[in-house]
Amino acid sequence: MSATGRPRPGGRTARVRRAVLDATLAELGEHGIDALTVDAVAARAGVHRATVHRRWTDVGGLLADALADAGEDGWIPPDTGTLAGDLAELNRQVHAALVAQPPVTAAVIAAAGRSPQAAAALRAFWDDRYARCAVVVDRAVERGEAAPGTDRQTVLVAATAPVFHHVVLLGRPLDVEQVLAYAALAARAAATGPCTGRDTAGDRQ
Amino acid sequence: MSATGRPRPGGRTARVRRAVLDATLAELGEHGIDALTVDAVAARAGVHRATVHRRWTDVGGLLADALADAGEDGWIPPDTGTLAGDLAELNRQVHAALVAQPPVTAAVIAAAGRSPQAAAALRAFWDDRYARCAVVVDRAVERGEAAPGTDRQTVLVAATAPVFHHVVLLGRPLDVEQVLAYAALAARAAATGPCTGRDTAGDRQ
Repeated sequence: MSATGRPRPGGRTARVRRAVLDATLAELGEHGIDALTVDAVAARAGVHRATVHRRWTDVGGLLADALADAGEDGWIPPDTGTLAGDLAELNRQVHAALVAQPPVTAAVIAAAGRSPQAAAALRAFWDDRYARCAVVVDRAVERGEAAPGTDRQTVLVAATAPVFHHVVLLGRPLDVEQVLAYAALAARAAATGPCTGRDTAGDRQ
Repeated sequence: MSATGRPRPGGRTARVRRAVLDATLAELGEHGIDALTVDAVAARAGVHRATVHRRWTDVGGLLADALADAGEDGWIPPDTGTLAGDLAELNRQVHAALVAQPPVTAAVIAAAGRSPQAAAALRAFWDDRYARCAVVVDRAVERGEAAPGTDRQTVLVAATAPVFHHVVLLGRPLDVEQVLAYAALAARAAATGPCTGRDTAGDRQ
């Protein structure tokens, strides 16, 4: 578009998005997900509510875009030198994200049941994060800590899924000892036998 | 109450509950969660909508009670003779429940984000199931397949949480090979080291 000589259209659009997403997080942090409304977000952002409705549809759409925005970072997985160390750090980060304030991740998960946009945003976010984490397992295979052909996603999900399970589905707080126990368990399983299944976290070795 | 000589009040109440829960499952199966309404359930059950609103509040309350009803069964965990076999069968059953039609479990999970009743029902259901499953790990300890002091819930959640994670949070179908891979991974971890953390599935050994 810049070849036409016109100003890039991203300028105002990007400013509106930034204002709306900042307002979404501020409203979420102050009032919680149950009180989050498109109207309150529009008012706080200084944007007409019709604009917010047209572009984000509903609260699920706002949360989905906030998550997408959070995912557009330069995050790379931990590289501690061991699979056990990497999974432990990964689990700490997953747990921190799930209990973070404002609770963006938790709010998007809660919204996913009624918002296709939120559900799609969650899938895209996890897919991207698991793909970035595939290197954790690849390095473990190179170091001989996991068998060649070990499924990256199987090991990664084995470590992280219990943290989601406790916080999201069981609705129970988790202490750091438990968070690390699941990482240790996955690392030990990878060290003592093949972790097979379908590998969807990256290319099969 | 029966000492008063009056008919037990459970009769009509129980019949209404049965009709309403059956109608909830029928509506859910035919039209899906997005089209599930208190009015449609009341009409199908032949019960006044005010009665349904008063007793179940909303769709989340209806789904929560349907899940509570489903949990009032005589279910006992598998007893295949090995920890690996028990966890494999457990994971098959969890997966079957998550993809079942009508999707009661999946619908309650989806409703939990907006319905405190649904969220509480989910917690009660899982708490009850994990408590019933504690014996699976106890037997494994007795057979020497897991170290004494192994946390029951840690092993059980390590096996089952990835199945929930794929279906509920990643929104991806799971093949039986993957379902079993996570069970095998948890069993192997239990066999090769202590699985510690806080034990909330039953009394600590």
